[in-house]
Amino acid sequence: MQKILNIQTRGRGTYDLSPDLARCVRESGIDSGLCHCFVHHTSASLILCENADPDVRHDLETFMGNLVPDGDPMFIHIDEGEDDMPAHVRSILTQAGISIPITDGRPGLGTWQSLYLWEHRLHPQQRRITLTLIAG
Amino acid sequence: MQKILNIQTRGRGTYDLSPDLARCVRESGIDSGLCHCFVHHTSASLILCENADPDVRHDLETFMGNLVPDGDPMFIHIDEGEDDMPAHVRSILTQAGISIPITDGRPGLGTWQSLYLWEHRLHPQQRRITLTLIAG
Amino acid sequence: MQKILNIQTRGRGTYDLSPDLARCVRESGIDSGLCHCFVHHTSASLILCENADPDVRHDLETFMGNLVPDGDPMFIHIDEGEDDMPAHVRSILTQAGISIPITDGRPGLGTWQSLYLWEHRLHPQQRRITLTLIAG
Repeated sequence: MQKILNIQTRGRGTYDLSPDLARCVRESGIDSGLCHCFVHHTSASLILCENADPDVRHDLETFMGNLVPDGDPMFIHIDEGEDDMPAHVRSILTQAGISIPITDGRPGLGTWQSLYLWEHRLHPQQRRITLTLIAG
Repeated sequence: MQKILNIQTRGRGTYDLSPDLARCVRESGIDSGLCHCFVHHTSASLILCENADPDVRHDLETFMGNLVPDGDPMFIHIDEGEDDMPAHVRSILTQAGISIPITDGRPGLGTWQSLYLWEHRLHPQQRRITLTLIAG
Repeated sequence: MQKILNIQTRGRGTYDLSPDLARCVRESGIDSGLCHCFVHHTSASLILCENADPDVRHDLETFMGNLVPDGDPMFIHIDEGEDDMPAHVRSILTQAGISIPITDGRPGLGTWQSLYLWEHRLHPQQRRITLTLIAG
């Protein structure tokens, strides 16, 4: 069983997918198994991140911005701007796909754990995500 | 089929989960499929790492300690100490979940490959891990 | 259902596995589900990367070479040369295993998304990969 999410981002930043995830798991009727989430792009990714203090995601942006600076002259793939190649690197340092256990008919996330889409491009993008639900 | 591991860590460092993994796969009776391992926290993660020379995991700590220094003044989320935000970043640069093939009733790891829990907090923690076993 | 790929690398660099992936999915006859790809080594990894402009993978090598320099004196595990420990770190910062949705009997990759084996050792190596295909 697969479901598609189409997420319109407002540019670089994190977008909480946990409500969508919970809804898709509930609709599947699966009690125990896996939900695999997959973003079909190479300049956005998925992360599991602390969900209580927004400063965590702020600091994460600061860290990644320092690690992979926009406009770094080491990059030659700059066709779509100074954030083009950094977006690819940031995606590869995180993950396009994450599987989450389904337990008692719900996503088995920890108390402080939420699933986020991380948009790495500066400008708004349309992002497609496939959820594959497997009973186990 | 799901199994829970509760791991008491002694603080930052790596903890070999391969014996637990092998036991859970054996108990499942699954001959071929996947074992998905998932840590329900955002300040500890899972890695597959070389298992022959402990210096590899020593060097890995050195590298990560330099890449994401405890107490770095760039971080504002410091409620739980200087290792708080670095633990979140280190988790996101590695993985909360890893799937391992089951082949011939055993985890299909390479000869030099073991599964480790990587505790990123300096102090001891109780960590919960869910294993989801799927025949395929 | 599992399939094995044996890939002979020519040393550090990326190797497109997408044709092998498509063939294995087709041969499985699975219409909807997951294909889990897993490399049984700790000095090579899998990535999903932009496939249109080879400069992306060139820049990725430049970035990773700067982030984890061969011969960095911080590393003490250097038995097999200056690229030994960097190969382990590069593997852990990326992934040994990646699951890809199967949709309509094909790998559900995005238009610009291909699966690559990333060889991190400087010299040629024989790499073993297991694909586990699960209907869902």
